[in-house]
Amino acid sequence: MRDREPVTDPSLRHLISLLPADRIRADAETKKIYGADWSGILAPAPLAVAFPQSTAEVALILKTCNEQGLAVVPSGGRTGLSGGAVAARGELVLSLEKLNAISEPDLKALTIKVGAGAITQAVHQKTAPLGLTWPVDFASKGSSQVGGNISTNAGGVRVIKYGSTRNWVLGLTAVTMQGEVLSLNGALEKNNTGLDLRHLLIGSEGVLAVITEATLKLCRLPASTQVMFFALRDFPKVIELFRWMRAQNVSLSAFECLSRECFEATIAHFSMKSPLGAAASEDSPGQMYVLVEIEIGLDGGGELQGLEEVFEQGIVEDGVLAQNSREAESLWKIREGVAESVLFHRLVHQQDISVGIADLQSFAAQIIQEYQRAYSELEVFIFGHVGDGNLHVFIRKPLAMSEETFWSLCERSDEGLFRFVARYRGSVSAEHGVGLLKLPALGYSRSPAELAFFKQIKQVFDPQGLLNPGKMIS
Amino acid sequence: MRDREPVTDPSLRHLISLLPADRIRADAETKKIYGADWSGILAPAPLAVAFPQSTAEVALILKTCNEQGLAVVPSGGRTGLSGGAVAARGELVLSLEKLNAISEPDLKALTIKVGAGAITQAVHQKTAPLGLTWPVDFASKGSSQVGGNISTNAGGVRVIKYGSTRNWVLGLTAVTMQGEVLSLNGALEKNNTGLDLRHLLIGSEGVLAVITEATLKLCRLPASTQVMFFALRDFPKVIELFRWMRAQNVSLSAFECLSRECFEATIAHFSMKSPLGAAASEDSPGQMYVLVEIEIGLDGGGELQGLEEVFEQGIVEDGVLAQNSREAESLWKIREGVAESVLFHRLVHQQDISVGIADLQSFAAQIIQEYQRAYSELEVFIFGHVGDGNLHVFIRKPLAMSEETFWSLCERSDEGLFRFVARYRGSVSAEHGVGLLKLPALGYSRSPAELAFFKQIKQVFDPQGLLNPGKMIS
Repeated sequence: MRDREPVTDPSLRHLISLLPADRIRADAETKKIYGADWSGILAPAPLAVAFPQSTAEVALILKTCNEQGLAVVPSGGRTGLSGGAVAARGELVLSLEKLNAISEPDLKALTIKVGAGAITQAVHQKTAPLGLTWPVDFASKGSSQVGGNISTNAGGVRVIKYGSTRNWVLGLTAVTMQGEVLSLNGALEKNNTGLDLRHLLIGSEGVLAVITEATLKLCRLPASTQVMFFALRDFPKVIELFRWMRAQNVSLSAFECLSRECFEATIAHFSMKSPLGAAASEDSPGQMYVLVEIEIGLDGGGELQGLEEVFEQGIVEDGVLAQNSREAESLWKIREGVAESVLFHRLVHQQDISVGIADLQSFAAQIIQEYQRAYSELEVFIFGHVGDGNLHVFIRKPLAMSEETFWSLCERSDEGLFRFVARYRGSVSAEHGVGLLKLPALGYSRSPAELAFFKQIKQVFDPQGLLNPGKMIS
Repeated sequence: MRDREPVTDPSLRHLISLLPADRIRADAETKKIYGADWSGILAPAPLAVAFPQSTAEVALILKTCNEQGLAVVPSGGRTGLSGGAVAARGELVLSLEKLNAISEPDLKALTIKVGAGAITQAVHQKTAPLGLTWPVDFASKGSSQVGGNISTNAGGVRVIKYGSTRNWVLGLTAVTMQGEVLSLNGALEKNNTGLDLRHLLIGSEGVLAVITEATLKLCRLPASTQVMFFALRDFPKVIELFRWMRAQNVSLSAFECLSRECFEATIAHFSMKSPLGAAASEDSPGQMYVLVEIEIGLDGGGELQGLEEVFEQGIVEDGVLAQNSREAESLWKIREGVAESVLFHRLVHQQDISVGIADLQSFAAQIIQEYQRAYSELEVFIFGHVGDGNLHVFIRKPLAMSEETFWSLCERSDEGLFRFVARYRGSVSAEHGVGLLKLPALGYSRSPAELAFFKQIKQVFDPQGLLNPGKMIS
């Protein structure tokens, strides 16, 4: 263990005196790591970083900060892309990473109790040998923490079958800024005893209380999966394939799309071989790719039959069915590797939008066209979750473009995009949350009356506005 | 149409002047019907009943009542059992029954838009010909309204597969006491733009705002179902059967239990023939019955195999598999007819409790024993939703017992039951909500800190306390 610089900031002296040793760190490296998230846009500048080891220590820290007027930023795996966990204004970062206990799964109830700092993938690894899983799953699961998943109501690649994180949380332990510990809902499947504060806290991005522990609901793992990868002429064909798949008597657990640009970036980044034949790599500007996953053996679900129809009917141009789990993993890597490949050592501006599923076809066609028409000098990558009406748009700065030009084009395209989302009554942040970065856009998706309620509810939980200040609520 | 008595109450004069004719009624019969719910305990005494025909009229009524200090009770199908829709203190009842429009289902999105006053079963009837359903289902669906289902986060007989109402609501239109119309979440599957006010309103029993319209999420109907009915020696065997069923590769959509007393009351009430052989009617005091439903063809789910095992292993004493839909309906009637049969022309005191699923076996065994030991003079009927850890306890007054003795015994047994529920960190109202009747028991399931938050959140939405006063929040 390397030496720690002593924490000298006078405003922390009282807090440090109340805690066991080593709970607060303020060295430059720690501050830099724990003050930032994966959005990478805002420079971290925390006062210090706290590493409590129990709910009681979280309560003590919050109560003390509340008394002393110190702002606090709750911090999980910091894989967020909206700046929700960024500490850029001298806040105390409250890392939950030491609260990472994972209990033995309860096989009678199909539940598991975990600390907020438990890594998402570690929960999967703990439950998989028992044939169970927590079906919250996405590319950053190796770093993200359960507390952050819950605080942001994380989505991911299997929402189409399992819904968002919200559906898989039975009980929460959370601490208010006053140091009050709330034990919400225990391990109950049904509990209609008044306002469901648990559901108010899920997705509240740490502005109301800090989640320290959760009882998660588990489900059975499928015996196996069928994973397919298709090339399609354009986005309307993606929707056609989606409707075809949804009409089959199978358990559809993922239906993910990516544009030709995403596909090529990922294949190149990981030096992979294209899983498809030559036909798919022809130059076709609107070409899209789709990954489909079907769960076998769960709830009696069987294999997909009659797949030749999608070729015969001209819905897809090309396609491949993974013959074993290694091939399936490799197909998944093309989808899950998109963000990493596009972001790698480059400046990227991200949007994460959704519309009603019925509107996705016309919405997507129009935004794709608009990026091609008005922003052809930008590098635009579109991918996402067709079954949820949710698309990610990554805009990468071309190497030759100045940052100034880039940001000015991004700003202009965002405004058009958001106005368009609003016309469809869509969401300007489908799964990434609001944080700092989406705050200015909130009015495109939420009404002034709703935003007023945000403020008033915040006031109830945190009247001094010290908990994750500046996030979600202006 | 019968003649209406003119509404003469001076406090309503202004409101009436603002609305189209016939929107307010104050005749004795209307007040008696719309001021009560199925709990039947509290005498209705509303000031009058309003029948708005649009969200705008609801807004006008609420705004005017807010200005004039008139209390309002939102009213759906009034099938609740906790007094949540009772107007016993001179309130204006706001019936949503005229807002009962049901749109054509959106087949691209698998959604349907309905008015709050739409009857639950009417939604099922509208969607069934398209092979779709809204999987919120319970015995009172022929009378209950969607707005009430949402306001109480209704549970029912298929929660084990589909979860509670909360999971099947995409968008809400709701009106605050100030007459502000909130359009929450439209038809979006994913929308992480801040606090989810929709989820705060779901289950809030009309104390925060009045729901006027909803976009519901639909799912596919199974091609067919397998319905089974079993007799089992005692409650531990029920749990054994549940574990066995859950381990099979089938799509389990209901696992409902009822005690021998429930079974006999229903068979007698509907003059049915027992579906089981003579063995099942032997005198066995702890005998239980279970209805199991398995969905076939949905998500590829198949039929249950190897059912003989539950007989060979001695898990069940007797059992029958419905051979056609008429037989399946008849088995379902035994389960769904319990409440009606026990309540028929008799005084019944009800409880609706849940514990974590892992605790249900020991919890149920102990409460069954306690009722037998200490309250053998009461007629106790236990039934419910094993897969959700949820049991209903109906206590019927024996004909020869005085009401005074009955209530005093109920009060004493309730106290023991609630203390026991609290020891298991269970719920004193698993699906029926709080209303007026469960309010005194709330402290057994929710902490003082949580109850304080209820009050403060209520204050945000309805500072004058005029919306459904006295319900849920003391």
